[in-house]
Amino acid sequence: MNKNLFEYLLRLGDDSLIIGHRLSEWCGHGPILEEDIAMTNMALDFIGQATTIFEYAAKVENTGRDADALAFLRYEREYRNVLLVEQPNEDFAVTMVRQFLFDAFRKPLYEALQNSSDTQIAAIAEKSLKETKYHLKHSSEWVIRLGDGTEESHEKAQYAVDTLWRYTDELFFENEVDAALQAENVIPSLIPIREEWQKTVTDVLTEATLSIPQNGWKQQGGRTGLHSEHLGYILAELQYMQRAYPGMKW
Amino acid sequence: MNKNLFEYLLRLGDDSLIIGHRLSEWCGHGPILEEDIAMTNMALDFIGQATTIFEYAAKVENTGRDADALAFLRYEREYRNVLLVEQPNEDFAVTMVRQFLFDAFRKPLYEALQNSSDTQIAAIAEKSLKETKYHLKHSSEWVIRLGDGTEESHEKAQYAVDTLWRYTDELFFENEVDAALQAENVIPSLIPIREEWQKTVTDVLTEATLSIPQNGWKQQGGRTGLHSEHLGYILAELQYMQRAYPGMKW
Repeated sequence: MNKNLFEYLLRLGDDSLIIGHRLSEWCGHGPILEEDIAMTNMALDFIGQATTIFEYAAKVENTGRDADALAFLRYEREYRNVLLVEQPNEDFAVTMVRQFLFDAFRKPLYEALQNSSDTQIAAIAEKSLKETKYHLKHSSEWVIRLGDGTEESHEKAQYAVDTLWRYTDELFFENEVDAALQAENVIPSLIPIREEWQKTVTDVLTEATLSIPQNGWKQQGGRTGLHSEHLGYILAELQYMQRAYPGMKW
Repeated sequence: MNKNLFEYLLRLGDDSLIIGHRLSEWCGHGPILEEDIAMTNMALDFIGQATTIFEYAAKVENTGRDADALAFLRYEREYRNVLLVEQPNEDFAVTMVRQFLFDAFRKPLYEALQNSSDTQIAAIAEKSLKETKYHLKHSSEWVIRLGDGTEESHEKAQYAVDTLWRYTDELFFENEVDAALQAENVIPSLIPIREEWQKTVTDVLTEATLSIPQNGWKQQGGRTGLHSEHLGYILAELQYMQRAYPGMKW
């Protein structure tokens, strides 16, 4: 099997799975009905992306594990999502800022992945890009509305930016896996993607009257399986059905 | 096997296990160091009680399931704890009022169970009574301090009493299981225990300047396996290790 490709697909799939799970926690708890439905729909988009990605990853791995096994039966250290997506929802501002910082990365990433030499990945990227554009529009608008809103909403949005900023650097993590796949034009370099991310984030935060933290502290680990304490609790919930009823079918 | 005895032991053990788990959630999050340690110690007392009770229950059941299997491998509907003990910690006042309402029940219960015709139960009750007396002293003092404290602490303590009161009636649930065991003098009638509970609660809440809700709404279900949504989340965490690593040993 192509180990690098498999590893890369886990990164892509786990980011989608975990942020989708976090969004799903809002289901029935949204601040307004319309937004409750919007977040639940986005959660479904991400779980859908994860499904497609894991189906392909299972094919690449070719050991008999299926998409469900990849989603529900790995141990914590085998998950490859960035720390950003596993951070707790806290309040609506934290959730939306987290979403925005992630969407602003995913959009240029999927745009570039459309040109992947791997036709499966190119097809996944093309399909996912449509919903990702909508996600980014949605989260950008909320960040602006919250940041440039009332004193309280501004404070909460700034707190969210300050709290989550340390996790953004990891979005651009690259190692030998990327180098190998880049050499085969399977995936793009993250350098221009980071530039576009930086521009989007600067533009939106400026319009939102929010300031970018000057504190340079960076936190990473997720891409190599070293997670914050939050992932363990997510997995306990996420995996409970498969763990308690192994091999269950609908 | 003695099905009634087994069922009763699950009630006793599950109450201890679940309230012990709830207290353990405070570990490292207590409002002051001394109290953080106190709550963690009480959590250990309850997990210890659950261990002894489940060891005996496993012997009574006699099917090869051990104490760990009873604690970690049953499904939600097989748990027999009262709804009160699975209610969320919320804040320190809710946790302490929940603890007080439970301790005020457990003390007279263990006192009476010391005279059980079942020598195992009598021994468990005698051993557990010592720590239960301390628990009740501790939680009573906190209820008084919070209720008769500042305006804010009074409000929070009154909210806790108002929220939890509906679950107290279930502490005195009795059915044919109790009737059968009472006939053999294995367990006492809950009528005098309820009287003592009522007196303790009235005395302490009065001293705490807290009022007893007049609302007569009663909520029950736990004793017959019908739980609030909270138990599922507790079990996902509580059972994760055994579910993810079946048969694991230290």
